[in-house]
Parts: sequence; C-alpha cells; structure tokens
Amino acid sequence: MDSLEKIVSLCKRRGFIFPGSDVYGGFAGTWDFGPLGVSLKKKIMDEWWKFFVENREDIYGIDAAILMNPKTWEASGHTATFADPLVECKECKSRFRADKIAKNINESVTTEEFLKTHTKCPVCGKENWGPIRKFNMMFATHVGAVLPDDDQEITAKNIAYLRPETAQGIFTNYKNVVDTIYPDIPFGLAQQGKAFRNEISPRDFILRDRECSQMEIEYFVNPTTWEDNFEKMRNLQHEFLEKIMGLPENKIHELEVPAEDRAHYSKRTIDFMFEYPNGQEELMGLAYRTDFDLTNIAKASGKSMDYRDKTTNETFIPHVIEPSIGVERLFLAILSSAYTEDEIDGNKRTVLKLPANLAPFKFCVSPLLKNKPELVQKAKAVYDKLRTKYGNVTWDDSGNIGKRYRKQDEIGTPACIVIDFDTLEDDTVTVRDRDTTEQTRTSIAEL
Amino acid sequence: MDSLEKIVSLCKRRGFIFPGSDVYGGFAGTWDFGPLGVSLKKKIMDEWWKFFVENREDIYGIDAAILMNPKTWEASGHTATFADPLVECKECKSRFRADKIAKNINESVTTEEFLKTHTKCPVCGKENWGPIRKFNMMFATHVGAVLPDDDQEITAKNIAYLRPETAQGIFTNYKNVVDTIYPDIPFGLAQQGKAFRNEISPRDFILRDRECSQMEIEYFVNPTTWEDNFEKMRNLQHEFLEKIMGLPENKIHELEVPAEDRAHYSKRTIDFMFEYPNGQEELMGLAYRTDFDLTNIAKASGKSMDYRDKTTNETFIPHVIEPSIGVERLFLAILSSAYTEDEIDGNKRTVLKLPANLAPFKFCVSPLLKNKPELVQKAKAVYDKLRTKYGNVTWDDSGNIGKRYRKQDEIGTPACIVIDFDTLEDDTVTVRDRDTTEQTRTSIAEL
Repeated sequence: MDSLEKIVSLCKRRGFIFPGSDVYGGFAGTWDFGPLGVSLKKKIMDEWWKFFVENREDIYGIDAAILMNPKTWEASGHTATFADPLVECKECKSRFRADKIAKNINESVTTEEFLKTHTKCPVCGKENWGPIRKFNMMFATHVGAVLPDDDQEITAKNIAYLRPETAQGIFTNYKNVVDTIYPDIPFGLAQQGKAFRNEISPRDFILRDRECSQMEIEYFVNPTTWEDNFEKMRNLQHEFLEKIMGLPENKIHELEVPAEDRAHYSKRTIDFMFEYPNGQEELMGLAYRTDFDLTNIAKASGKSMDYRDKTTNETFIPHVIEPSIGVERLFLAILSSAYTEDEIDGNKRTVLKLPANLAPFKFCVSPLLKNKPELVQKAKAVYDKLRTKYGNVTWDDSGNIGKRYRKQDEIGTPACIVIDFDTLEDDTVTVRDRDTTEQTRTSIAEL
Repeated sequence: MDSLEKIVSLCKRRGFIFPGSDVYGGFAGTWDFGPLGVSLKKKIMDEWWKFFVENREDIYGIDAAILMNPKTWEASGHTATFADPLVECKECKSRFRADKIAKNINESVTTEEFLKTHTKCPVCGKENWGPIRKFNMMFATHVGAVLPDDDQEITAKNIAYLRPETAQGIFTNYKNVVDTIYPDIPFGLAQQGKAFRNEISPRDFILRDRECSQMEIEYFVNPTTWEDNFEKMRNLQHEFLEKIMGLPENKIHELEVPAEDRAHYSKRTIDFMFEYPNGQEELMGLAYRTDFDLTNIAKASGKSMDYRDKTTNETFIPHVIEPSIGVERLFLAILSSAYTEDEIDGNKRTVLKLPANLAPFKFCVSPLLKNKPELVQKAKAVYDKLRTKYGNVTWDDSGNIGKRYRKQDEIGTPACIVIDFDTLEDDTVTVRDRDTTEQTRTSIAEL
C-alpha cells in the first residue's frame, strides 16, 4: 500500500472521511466528512478566518449564495472558457479528458494533435477516437417554475450554474461593501464556501473532487502598489501555512507560473506546490488578477466600480491580489505531513503528528482500570474539568492502556491522561506524550 | 414602512444582508451576507455547534456533500413527493403556486378544486387557467461527461439533485459512523450546511429563499424510549433558543402538528413558531421520524441498518428524533426581536438589542476628538489591547460622539468606549451602554 492509500484507509477506518453516498455504492467525486474529519476541517477553516479576518483590520467577511445570476459567469469568462477537452472512444463509447490520457499535450489540444499521440482507449484498448469537444465544467441547473417539457425555456433564460469558484461572489459584492462600510484601501474581502466543478474524471482522493470548499480573499489595492501588496500577501500565506497550519516549510515549493500558463486575467501567479504522498500538487494559488474582474462587471452591469481614495481623492478601479486555497487540499496536506509510522519498543505504530491547535481532541482521559469504580469516578471528574475548560477532550476506557494509546496516536490526540491508584492518594496523573511516548507525572491542578 | 421592511433596509444599509447578485439586478430567492451579516451568521452557527456538538458527549458532527447519489432521493420519497402545485395562466403565461394565490386550499389541491375558487391571475387579472401540475422543488443537474446533445443520458443515469435537506446526508452516513466510532445509544449526528429548494415564488426576505443553511440533528434512539428523548430534545431546543440565542420566550409558540398535516414519515411533530414582524412563521421543527429513513435506506441499499446495543445485546433499527432549524429563519428571528426604536432625549434612534455573544462587535473604541494625536494614540492602545483579548472590537473616529453612538446602536454593539483628556491623567474611560445609554467611568485595567 502506498502512503496515499494508507491515509485514505485511515480516514475511512477512523471516521475522518468517507466516500460520498457510500451506502449506495458512492457517487464519484464526492466525499463526506465523518466526526473526526468535521472537527479537523472546522478547525482549519476557523483558524483561517481568525488569522485573515478576525485578527486583521483590513479584511472583511462575505458569504454569497452559491446560485448566482448567470450574467456573473458571462462577465467572468467561465461560460466561454471554463472547459476541458473531452474525447470519446468510438468503439466502447467511454469518455475521457484528452489531456489526462495522452502525454505531452495540454488543455488546448486539438483533435489533430490528439490523434498524433496514438493513445489507446484505457477501457477497451482500441484506438478509434471521435473529435475533441469542449466540455464546460460548470454544473447547470434551472431556476424557477420550469417543467421538464418546457424545452425552450430550459435552454435559455432560466439556466443557472453552481458556482465554480467563490471569487465571483466577492467581486459581485464589492460595490455594496464599498457603499456601506467605506473601507480604506488596501482592503480585502474574504469568503469560505462550496464550489463545484464537473470533473470528467475525478481522482486522487479529495484532491480532484467535484465539490470542494474554498477559502479566498480578494485584496483590493491601488494599482500602483500591487507589487508590495503581492509580497505582503505572499508572506502572510507562508505564515499561515507554516505557523498556524504547521506544514513543513521544506514541503512547500513556490512555482512562478510562466506567462503562457497563467489564467488569461493574471499578470503574475505563484502556485504554492506541496509534496503530497503521490507527488507535488498545487496546494494554493496567489494571483495578481489586475482589474480584470471589476472592469468586466462594470461593463456587464453598467455600474461604476470606481473607488475614491478618501485621503488623496484619487479615483480608480482597484486592482486585485487573490490568495485562493482549497480546504480539502489543505486538509490532505496536513494529514499527509502528520502521518508517521514508527516503532516503539519493537512495535510498529501509526501516529498522526497533528499540531495541537488542529487535533480533533486535545486530550484523552482514561481510568487505568475500567472495573474499579473509584478510578472511573476520579477519571470522570478530571474529564469533566478538562472538557469544560477546553471542549475537545475525549474519553476512553476500552481495552488496555497500550491499545488506547495506539488508538489515540492514530487520530492525533497530543496527550493521554491516565488516572491510577496514586491519583487517589496525591492528585497526580500520568500524562503520556503522543510524539515522544514519554510519560510524566503531573498534578491535576497543573493540567 | 412596516417593521420587516425596516429590517430589510437596515440589513442592506449597514452590510448585514444584500440581495444576491445585486450588481446584476439580483437573482430571485438568493441573498448574500455582508461583513456584519457573516459575523452574526457565523456566531449563530458556532454557538449551535458548541451547544449541541462540542459541549455534549452524545452528538457527533457530520459534513456530507451537497451532491448525493440520486438513489438517496428515491429512497427518501423526495423524487416522488417533494412537489408544489403549479398552475399557469393561459392568457399571460404567468406561473404560480396554486395554494399561494387561492384561499383555503392546500398543497394537494386538484385542478377541479382550484377552478372552483375562481381565482383571478395576479398578473393580468383574467381567469383562464391550465391544469394543476406537480412541480418538483429539487434543483436537477447532470454529473459527469454529459454534453448538451446527449438527450438520452441527460434524462436518465447522470441526473443529480442539489440536496433539498441536510438530513439525508446524515442518514446515509449512519452506518459508516456506527461501524467506525461505535457510539452508545442514544446518540445524535449533527450537520450544518446548505440546502436548496426551487421555490416557485420566493418571498418574505430570507424566510422563503431558494438557498438556505440548515442545522439538523438526527438523534438515534431505542424505539421504546422515543417519548423521553423527544421531551429531552424539546427542552434542549428551548434552552438553545432562549438562553443562547436570547430569543424572548413569549414570542416562541409550540404548534402540535395534527396527524393529517404531518409529513408522511412523522408520528409526532412540533413546529416552533416565532412571532416575526409579518406574523407567526415556522422557526424550526421537531419531528419524530420513526425508523422511516433508515428502513428505506436498508431496502434501497440492501445493507443492514441494525444497531446492536452493547449492554443488552438487543438488536434493532434505531428510531429518530429530528430537531431541524434554518439559519436564515433564526437570523431573522434574532434581528427582529433585537430591532427597537426608542427616543433618547427627544431624539429617535434605532437600536439592535443583540445578545452580547452574537453582536458582530463587542466594543467600539473611539478617541473623543480625532484631531488630538495624544487621544488617538491612547485610544489605539486601548483598541489593540481589547482586540487582542476579544477579537471582535471595532474602531470609529468619524463624526461626533453622538453620531458614533447611533451608528453602533444600529448594528448592536453593546458598549462604546471613549478615550478623553481625563484618560490621559487617570487611565479611566467612558463606557456607554447600548441599551440604557448610561455612561460610566471605568479604569482601563477593569475593561
């Protein structure tokens, strides 16, 4: 089993992540978070919100609807260009993303170029391909009282898309925010929420799913200052990823995206690549989007996107620096850098070395023996005390102490606290450290 | 202006809630939360999570995907029955929900019954109706590599729905949770997340929108104990609504739903009605769902939903008590009970008497005068100190003190702290109370 498979297996076994709709045989590209997964995901999202919104004076929150006016996606360019090259095998009718089954071609591959690669169908092994077609990755739906037999209306005015990114929900609110809270520039608007992409072939666990949670900031700046603000945002991302999320600095690699590979709107993009178990993959992106989005919205809506600087009275359309991160990608980066196999006294163990601020439980409290009421009672008192103080504390009185330690190691609980007969005498407990497995004696008052 | 209109206006003016896609003229039935709205919404959701999940030992979190295997909605009955009666005016082609434009009929109205009501078209005033048709409120989309010209596939195997409730994302995970964390019964699974309903006529601000956030718990119990657990959940809901959300007890009315009005799966339902500005409306529901959902999932999936009691070894399909609340409904209940107009020294003011745990800002810090650097500097020091301690603290040095108070009253900030020349002498500040408008002198150390 390779290391990604081991993590997928741990996630299912311990209730971090289950395949979506698992009871019905799953639903490709969707994943459900179980009790421990929700806890970790929520901590990741809360820490991001605290770091970028609550602890700062220049970034404000937004929470826009997933269903947006379809003009949004015309103005942003998604209706026209958010598409993957789709190819169908004429023999077995299987469909694939052309640039994923052939080597050395990219998303803009033509039928001619694809045929020259002499790719065989991964399903039937034949080589008999239809033309390359553009497949738009936005999920379409119909809003309002449209019935299945209303052919004309369905294809026209009532169509809506599940947002393929949260960013546009920020740009469409820019004007209302400027008109209501009059923020000083530079200022950012931050949003967390779901985004949807109809991937032709979802794969790589939660890395390429059809439904994901994004955390995005649009940071609005005076165009003359974009380079300084780009640097500021770049440093902030490193601080968040390394200090708050605890990711190892040497597993994060900045990739300066060359002009020909950048999105059409971007004048500079850095992809933050992370060393996942199955290779380097994008963890997040930092893009200088210029005034592309606000200018397009101004054109499409007929409304001014001008910002007037309160001090200088200068008027301009702000330019935008955008740090954008996928929660699931960050979740997997954290899990995979925490995942460790080592040997303790000749016994192999699996341990998740999660940072204490992210671990689903801070402590596990146990009585040494389950069948001694005086120990159980004392342990419950310690448990209640810690739970009132910290919230995320768990209880375990199953099996023997060694097994309990292994179970807690596997879900990343930083410390196990054991109540034994000495506790009844002197109010001290054994505190066992997850990473070193060292045991120390501490008084209950000091916990 | 009636009181709901005033709240809608305040929400837009101060950045609580904007119409969705406002810059493009809106998008019916969608709403976006601005900076203050996100803050309040997040506090509501975090308090719920803390109260029902983190502070309890018997309720665990789940976070399922919005896109689910379509078998989910066949098993739950939504594909067949989650529909409203749609009627079309043959004259002007306008479409309406029949039971909303005619009086004294309900959702199961037939064409004959509707015609007998002699309703006139609200748009053109004529009375020339087509037949009543069932309009399913689930938003449909297509998942996977399906192109617009693939007629056959579109109507069949690749269809998926945006979930119309979060509950099914819990039921489909029941088995995986039981198999991984072996919870003792009774236990609950809690989820917060988006749900979508294609309302024919969205209305009443955020009360009847097309996209909402739900907070639901499925509480699994031994069928012999359902009545006790129903009472337990009922009391917990009151405690949450009244003590944590601060809603006035006398505005919440329990409505025992009679058998003929209950959902087909429910043996008992209490609707918690709230006195909104525009009348009593459902705030939340508490339903005894029996084993309806798990039994249907067992049939549809072929998998056992049995639970084996660890103590008694008894095996059974658990029954379910479900408290279900819409975040937007709760948000509006809180805003509308906080919204107050009173008179202070002959001047009218608008004040949001939000509970301190929900107010977007706990404090507003101000220097008495903006053009005195020593006051500004001292005020900044107090501001930084409080911000580090509490997080949600705001700064205001615009206009005069009276105007600042009014601005903070309107967004519900419980206390304004003013730094004046005395502060420089004795380190005391003026603390002005939002509700009483009383001003007291307090030392900075005691804040």
